[in-house]
Amino acid sequence: MTDISCTVIAGGVGAARFLRGLVRAIDPAGVTAIVNVADDVVMHGLNVSPDLDTVTYTLAGVDNTETGWGVEDETWQAMQTLGRYGGDVWFNLGDRDLGTNLFRTGQLAEGAPLSAVTRDITAGWGIDATLLPATDDRIETRVTTADHGEIGFQEYFVRHRHAVPVTAVRFVGIEAAAPGPGVLEAISDADLVVIAPSNPVVSIGPVVSIPGIREAIESRRDTVVGISPIVGGKALKGPADRLMRELGMEPTVVGVAEAYRSMAGTLVIDEVDAAMAGTVEASGMDCIVTDTIMRDAEIAAALATTIIDGVLDR
Amino acid sequence: MTDISCTVIAGGVGAARFLRGLVRAIDPAGVTAIVNVADDVVMHGLNVSPDLDTVTYTLAGVDNTETGWGVEDETWQAMQTLGRYGGDVWFNLGDRDLGTNLFRTGQLAEGAPLSAVTRDITAGWGIDATLLPATDDRIETRVTTADHGEIGFQEYFVRHRHAVPVTAVRFVGIEAAAPGPGVLEAISDADLVVIAPSNPVVSIGPVVSIPGIREAIESRRDTVVGISPIVGGKALKGPADRLMRELGMEPTVVGVAEAYRSMAGTLVIDEVDAAMAGTVEASGMDCIVTDTIMRDAEIAAALATTIIDGVLDR
Repeated sequence: MTDISCTVIAGGVGAARFLRGLVRAIDPAGVTAIVNVADDVVMHGLNVSPDLDTVTYTLAGVDNTETGWGVEDETWQAMQTLGRYGGDVWFNLGDRDLGTNLFRTGQLAEGAPLSAVTRDITAGWGIDATLLPATDDRIETRVTTADHGEIGFQEYFVRHRHAVPVTAVRFVGIEAAAPGPGVLEAISDADLVVIAPSNPVVSIGPVVSIPGIREAIESRRDTVVGISPIVGGKALKGPADRLMRELGMEPTVVGVAEAYRSMAGTLVIDEVDAAMAGTVEASGMDCIVTDTIMRDAEIAAALATTIIDGVLDR
Repeated sequence: MTDISCTVIAGGVGAARFLRGLVRAIDPAGVTAIVNVADDVVMHGLNVSPDLDTVTYTLAGVDNTETGWGVEDETWQAMQTLGRYGGDVWFNLGDRDLGTNLFRTGQLAEGAPLSAVTRDITAGWGIDATLLPATDDRIETRVTTADHGEIGFQEYFVRHRHAVPVTAVRFVGIEAAAPGPGVLEAISDADLVVIAPSNPVVSIGPVVSIPGIREAIESRRDTVVGISPIVGGKALKGPADRLMRELGMEPTVVGVAEAYRSMAGTLVIDEVDAAMAGTVEASGMDCIVTDTIMRDAEIAAALATTIIDGVLDR
């Protein structure tokens, strides 16, 4: 059971935690993550890819557990200097993390596609799983807020700490974007596709809005599993519950089921939401009820095994 | 004598050392440096201005005396990460130094001219002297080498350690460049103009090749002083002697006199070159013979005072 292939539709932290378990449950060579890049931002001229780097650092085992983002053993000398000049320091980039962004920016400027740069970065950390940017094209999540008008995602998420009301979200450039190299094949060829417990609106949303990706997932719906990022009506991390509510979705596992049921035959929900399993099943999905709170890599690996066994062995 | 104004045509380290003395000899508010920007380079997407930053860090008293460039108390975390991916690390950027480059890159991307960015950076270090980029336009020194063809200045200077034969030097964009805001006024209005002991070919050369600057200096030649960067036939630092020879100039104070005599009424040479003072004078320049090797700030201040007294009091 360890040599199956599994493709994960991924955002940032929630996806990274699941992937860290998955590479313990099955051979990492069979693991592919298709990662959201609509949060990517140019800061001080640097191409920053927060979700790709969160997954990379987590799989490399060098994620910063103090901050919850970035690299461990980090220093902040560049930001301190920047602050001396009155520069924008709300998007905090550690010195080690800057090295990743310098590499990516330099390579992109020389014409390398993001997928190739990502391959070099993951190789640099000795990661055996495959990370694919959802697209090599530039797409950008824009968030309309009541107080600040339309702003970039990182401004909403970091600068305003996702604590401002949102009336709309759009993905600029999405219609013209093409799935990155290998993305459609990774979806069609894998034994199992998992939609990671990431934000359905701003992490999974842009990935499956790239023309062709949603259709590829839907066409193999029976072996696609979504993991609810909502537990007991709350997002474990970030603004998923708030955003869902503000955009007219029900911020519960039933709302998640609604969002995913055309793509996924199964929804995984946490034990605290067991009472809603029947409603999920009534919507036309199978439902797996288990512990989804990935406090450590072993729990994440157990979750992965439960999902694989539940879907592929039934 | 301490409230005079002095404008310095400046490259990197040699100019920075002279300026550190000058701000001790006269009121720093009267000091303006017009700094070479033809060495500027885009590395990993960042706008790097080596000469501006060398002068800034030296005047701020935070220059790195271990490396001879960059900021003191430096760390190298970003470069270590970059190296992990196989990125170009021949142009070493420290973490603190990166903060300066991030600020500059971000501001330039938002449309600020380099002169305004430089003002913010020097203000951030509490520098009372004025630093003016020679131009806000992009100019670029290109060096033709026997072994590597035409390469950028930093590739020649840093990557190849200025140890390869040069057959030609050109300044791309120079004909279309305009003197930066305040540059011509700083030249015409100062009590004294000093051509710092910088490389005549690749530091002073591009500054005075910007249309209007050489003419502005020539039109007040009597109170313009050049300081020879060549001492005993050698550059104190860098490839000035070698470049002069390779490009057909005599690598001595006489060659420096030849290069500067249309602009400067006086040449300052070191005591070791005292025997050539007569030849310098025969070329139509006054000649000051003194200790020009600025081992510390006090010697540099004494040099500045000697020059001021020698030229303005005669």
